[in-house]
Amino acid sequence: MALMFLSPDDPAELWRDELRARMPELDVQIWPEIADPAAIEVALVWRAPPGELARYPNLKAILSLGAGIEGLVADPTLPDLPIARMVDPSLTRTMSEYVLTAVLRHHREFDRFEREQRAHNWAYSFPPQAAERQIGVMGLGELGAQAARELARHGFPVAGWSRTPKAIAGVTSYAGRSELHAFLHRCDMLVCLLPLTAETRGILDAETFGGLAHGAFVINAARGAHLVEADLLAALDSGHLAGATLDVFHSEPLPPDSPLWRHPKVLITPHVASYCSPATAADGVVDNVRRALAGQPLRHQIDRARGY
Amino acid sequence: MALMFLSPDDPAELWRDELRARMPELDVQIWPEIADPAAIEVALVWRAPPGELARYPNLKAILSLGAGIEGLVADPTLPDLPIARMVDPSLTRTMSEYVLTAVLRHHREFDRFEREQRAHNWAYSFPPQAAERQIGVMGLGELGAQAARELARHGFPVAGWSRTPKAIAGVTSYAGRSELHAFLHRCDMLVCLLPLTAETRGILDAETFGGLAHGAFVINAARGAHLVEADLLAALDSGHLAGATLDVFHSEPLPPDSPLWRHPKVLITPHVASYCSPATAADGVVDNVRRALAGQPLRHQIDRARGY
Repeated sequence: MALMFLSPDDPAELWRDELRARMPELDVQIWPEIADPAAIEVALVWRAPPGELARYPNLKAILSLGAGIEGLVADPTLPDLPIARMVDPSLTRTMSEYVLTAVLRHHREFDRFEREQRAHNWAYSFPPQAAERQIGVMGLGELGAQAARELARHGFPVAGWSRTPKAIAGVTSYAGRSELHAFLHRCDMLVCLLPLTAETRGILDAETFGGLAHGAFVINAARGAHLVEADLLAALDSGHLAGATLDVFHSEPLPPDSPLWRHPKVLITPHVASYCSPATAADGVVDNVRRALAGQPLRHQIDRARGY
Repeated sequence: MALMFLSPDDPAELWRDELRARMPELDVQIWPEIADPAAIEVALVWRAPPGELARYPNLKAILSLGAGIEGLVADPTLPDLPIARMVDPSLTRTMSEYVLTAVLRHHREFDRFEREQRAHNWAYSFPPQAAERQIGVMGLGELGAQAARELARHGFPVAGWSRTPKAIAGVTSYAGRSELHAFLHRCDMLVCLLPLTAETRGILDAETFGGLAHGAFVINAARGAHLVEADLLAALDSGHLAGATLDVFHSEPLPPDSPLWRHPKVLITPHVASYCSPATAADGVVDNVRRALAGQPLRHQIDRARGY
């Protein structure tokens, strides 16, 4: 029983230790040091090189280290195996925390004070109370629902938009393209936590921004391909949007010559919104490893046709 | 029955309307347009010029528009009348929100990402989980206790330090000078919400900073005189402190030549941490106006000798 750990971004040794502590009989091998590809039965992966996962003839399941799996399924050589996305309390908690940090930074005008500070300018004025600042969350899956709940608990009026209607206490639900405009119309701040699919690609565009209140803020912590960057820059430069916090980009790392780096109303964070702690996530991984080895359905198995 | 409203910082007409809606018989006069000083029985004030409040012979009570009253009692000509500080849900809520915003901005390294962005630098790395970041709150009055509760609810381990021991669920209590060092020793982030008294003046000094963990952050949302600015700059420049968020200063507005403006690890906000909404605070003010006119003790009356 061997598991391959493959991620350029995660702490491999820490993961190996947490998995071994729970399942001593599991042989955890860290890519690219794989002695015998035929021994690998489960792969725990993030950002696997295209073609790589087709090289393991006895692979039974693919477990993603991230919540989004569009990178995996974009690989045309990916074997037709069960795929599970990561669902972990720390992944959800950190995303919700990131969204709250970004929302509060705009809401309490720390972004404006940072700019004013460069001019040594005492820019005294008070923002509205949280109850007067309407937030919209696009995408109400594990991450979006929790972020929406957290914002509502904090006192913001929160609406959510998703493919199908969702019942979340304290969150007004809008669903489908037909209700998108009504949803956008009430947003002073828009948070994107959608899965990336054919329907959601490029959804943060001029038309969407035009539907928001004047002076609105946009936070994208989903995927870079949700955003039409030129449309965002135009909406910021026209003054229609007051600011943006971006964690994800078409190309990552964001190229040094991207105009986003230089824009005074954009904050760039380097794809750090959500991260899981091996200490809390390892239980769920081990559970799915046992399921894969026993031929049972995985927990949090994705629907490959739907894309999430 | 006349009330004088005196504040250069608050929306006078909004306050007048909210007070009149609750107590139509009250004559609300907005300073400096006071027709007859002898008619004024109650003063609702913030930053009154020294000597001003001694000019109203029939004044019965002074109601502060802010939580801190050290500016009032510093006036040697202040008449010996009951003084109430402002306690209002919105005042407490906005302070707690400010503290959370500042803590999260440091915790999630948005301060570092802002600096890295100027160099177009994709500074990928993950901070500790909230459970691994210890926060200390100095001062556990109305504002400090609520901020401590909010931080604890968010998942941070929180300790509090105050003059006398306090029992707050989820917050470890330290009290008095004898326990200050033990309190500081466990803090990765220090939040000051103390009242300004002879005992707390200058408490944010080299000795206090030296007691904090290496790489700690300091947030001061209390009063400028709590902080020894030169000691803060030295601790930042030595690398012992990683950053600071300051809302209050010895001199306000902060003079344009202050070195704090230029420091890359300091965020200056212009005394905006806490603000009350007349719509929610007017009930408490009207209650105290009625008490003052009836000769009853005020709610939230301060102890002038103690200073808060």
